[in-house]
Amino acid sequence: MDMFKKLYDELATKVNEYLHNTLDDMEKYPKIIFDSMEHSLFAGGKRLRPVMLLASHRLLGGNLNESLPLAGGLEMIHTYSLIHDDLPAMDNDDFRRGVPTNHKIFGEGIAILSGDALLNLAYEIMLDNALKYPDKLINHVKAINTIAQAAGIRGMIGGQVVDLQYEGKEVDSDTLQYIHQHKTGALFMASLKASIMLENPPEDASKALMEYGKSLGLAFQVIDDILDVVGDDKTLGKKTGSDKDRRKATYVDKYGLDKSWSIARQLRDSAIAQMETFGQKGEFLRQLAQFIVDRHH
Amino acid sequence: MDMFKKLYDELATKVNEYLHNTLDDMEKYPKIIFDSMEHSLFAGGKRLRPVMLLASHRLLGGNLNESLPLAGGLEMIHTYSLIHDDLPAMDNDDFRRGVPTNHKIFGEGIAILSGDALLNLAYEIMLDNALKYPDKLINHVKAINTIAQAAGIRGMIGGQVVDLQYEGKEVDSDTLQYIHQHKTGALFMASLKASIMLENPPEDASKALMEYGKSLGLAFQVIDDILDVVGDDKTLGKKTGSDKDRRKATYVDKYGLDKSWSIARQLRDSAIAQMETFGQKGEFLRQLAQFIVDRHH
Repeated sequence: MDMFKKLYDELATKVNEYLHNTLDDMEKYPKIIFDSMEHSLFAGGKRLRPVMLLASHRLLGGNLNESLPLAGGLEMIHTYSLIHDDLPAMDNDDFRRGVPTNHKIFGEGIAILSGDALLNLAYEIMLDNALKYPDKLINHVKAINTIAQAAGIRGMIGGQVVDLQYEGKEVDSDTLQYIHQHKTGALFMASLKASIMLENPPEDASKALMEYGKSLGLAFQVIDDILDVVGDDKTLGKKTGSDKDRRKATYVDKYGLDKSWSIARQLRDSAIAQMETFGQKGEFLRQLAQFIVDRHH
Repeated sequence: MDMFKKLYDELATKVNEYLHNTLDDMEKYPKIIFDSMEHSLFAGGKRLRPVMLLASHRLLGGNLNESLPLAGGLEMIHTYSLIHDDLPAMDNDDFRRGVPTNHKIFGEGIAILSGDALLNLAYEIMLDNALKYPDKLINHVKAINTIAQAAGIRGMIGGQVVDLQYEGKEVDSDTLQYIHQHKTGALFMASLKASIMLENPPEDASKALMEYGKSLGLAFQVIDDILDVVGDDKTLGKKTGSDKDRRKATYVDKYGLDKSWSIARQLRDSAIAQMETFGQKGEFLRQLAQFIVDRHH
């Protein structure tokens, strides 16, 4: 197994262990809501956002245990957004990652509450963690705030709202850009920005990380659009072509398949170029950009 | 107008102004989500929780501007919980406080997202505010964490889950107690506890405030149950008898109307008794307990 894959798995495993431990440390009452949260938290997510946070924190010389709760919180926020997104009133998806969506198993009421619970729990664990670092409390509050801004109405939720509004409608490219940058890009950026808030690196390092995140977040969404058209149900674990059926805003609709691939590769390359400033240390994030863009090539 | 009413209105007005200013300071895009949030935030809520937080912070010598964003955050959390509670998958209510519920106007998708946005925004504004008080940052993080714990799965959401699970079922009095203490009591307690976290008062003061909150939170719920039976649609602004129709867990079902009134009065009196330690300064919270229990007598 190559070095990249090994470190990726190591970090993803840390995140999984942390999420398991966090829930296992709580009295699991009412049981159904813990079952529901665990169903979606452990439904095979790639842990991309938390791995990025941990990797970028490591790149800046940070300690893994200090950022692990922020990585876990980020994953909880991502998971809650998927649970709510899948609801009948939103995307109305029955499957995700090959398993039935939360509301298909637990009902809509519990799925709504379980999403709410995960969002709120993210703040609980990040705040608990912040209190363990009194000397860096201000760094932690800024990091949590960065994640909060990215998750909120000026970030991810804003993107979800516009996405919902444009269902079944033609979409101009500015709006398409807005949806992607907010719905997906904001949390990507936040994973890098949070690590910057924790470690206060020199200006050029933080600028490089931010540019990396901007390009990669967008690349990730373009690839998602492409896979929705060319992927098969088994790889994605959900019905492909579902975005197209419902006339959702996608890059493939707008630019065609070939142009979309070339956009994705360009974005990958500019992300990779940003890592130059870190030399050998930037290798993991360089390979992460490759991995994201080439994952189903 | 008596002193109590005057101060109550003054504090509630501060909360309203703060909420308006907070939203007006943001770029209101996508517009529909701001319309939706504002619909529920300004649908005539009494601002009980934020007023309690401000009053108790004042009692402890605190500065109003310092706690206002926590009061506003608490009200946003309360409001989001109402929006989600009213959804068809939950209580399925068409009216609240005399106006159509959020999803009846904006649709279920936007109502879900608008609840999510309010919950998240609560943390954004509380964290922003915390950063304005670097010397008291630890107090603020503890205060926010107190509110987060109360709003989460070990608090309000836990109560909502059990409430949802017991719909249409017989409920034992332990479960009834659990639902009330979590669904309503937790945020009540948090409003007082947050002010304690901010000001670090002597042990006896914080103990008195906590006991006050415990009794009053429970009293509030008992009164709600009573009003659901004896109130009229106009006073409550929603269909009365709706809890009973759906066999929800209420004090009146369990103990009858007379016993419920007497429980409420007992709880009010023990709340009032706790204020003795504050002398004349405790007058507002004493009268607040009266106001809550006697509001529709």
